[in-house]
Amino acid sequence: MTVLLPVEIMKIALEEARTAAAENEVPIGAVLDLGDGSLIRGHNRAEAEGPLAHAELIVLERALKEKGREAVGRATLFVTVEPCIMCLGAMVHARIGGLVYGAPEPKFGGIGILEQARKEGRYPYSFPVHAGLMEEEAALLMKEFFGRLR
Amino acid sequence: MTVLLPVEIMKIALEEARTAAAENEVPIGAVLDLGDGSLIRGHNRAEAEGPLAHAELIVLERALKEKGREAVGRATLFVTVEPCIMCLGAMVHARIGGLVYGAPEPKFGGIGILEQARKEGRYPYSFPVHAGLMEEEAALLMKEFFGRLR
Repeated sequence: MTVLLPVEIMKIALEEARTAAAENEVPIGAVLDLGDGSLIRGHNRAEAEGPLAHAELIVLERALKEKGREAVGRATLFVTVEPCIMCLGAMVHARIGGLVYGAPEPKFGGIGILEQARKEGRYPYSFPVHAGLMEEEAALLMKEFFGRLR
Repeated sequence: MTVLLPVEIMKIALEEARTAAAENEVPIGAVLDLGDGSLIRGHNRAEAEGPLAHAELIVLERALKEKGREAVGRATLFVTVEPCIMCLGAMVHARIGGLVYGAPEPKFGGIGILEQARKEGRYPYSFPVHAGLMEEEAALLMKEFFGRLR
């Protein structure tokens, strides 16, 4: 069983983000580390498949289907960019083991929103969150993509 | 073309919620009114299909697939219970035309959270929300269901 370091897993998520960019999708990639040496990887497919096809949701749905709820509860989700409230809500419902993300997302990022909700006694299920892993690389991909669009 | 009144559409959503209860699922139903006389209905299937199979997400995904983004942008989603942040985020991404819901949900309801996020300049896309339609009926179904579980 090969166990990868967080930075190595995030590099795979960044590869996924680059694949998204090549498909003219907002470059966000996600990798679920199931902790047993297996990974489930995916990237944003919102243009091709519809506005709910975020990298995180694609990966979570596949993991729930293929590995089951218990395995997802032990897994850590790596995402290149701060997840939105839809994907964070999905992580709460799926009782994800943990979250690691790269760059903050000022418009749709939902980490602060979820924290505020917890303070108000909502969304009582919490999981460890680590922000900023390979932030510069993830942010640069987003900047290049939106720069190209202009 | 038969146009149904909001209360008639919510009655169909309540039927869906009762179907969920009969399947031992938390009794939440949703109906998407496409405004052309056609409806897409669904109910919570979290136990049977996995923790992301909320009524709203099921209905939205079907509508996006079968009717497309423009039709969803003109549609109104009726839900028996206040949606969670996952489903509200999905409505934002799908640019739903409007939302009508019945009973408030103190633990996972996300309406206040989304409003707060908008005040902070996040989630700039907003849509009309009407709360409390047939609230008592929807709340009673939830109360009966959780009473039965105890």
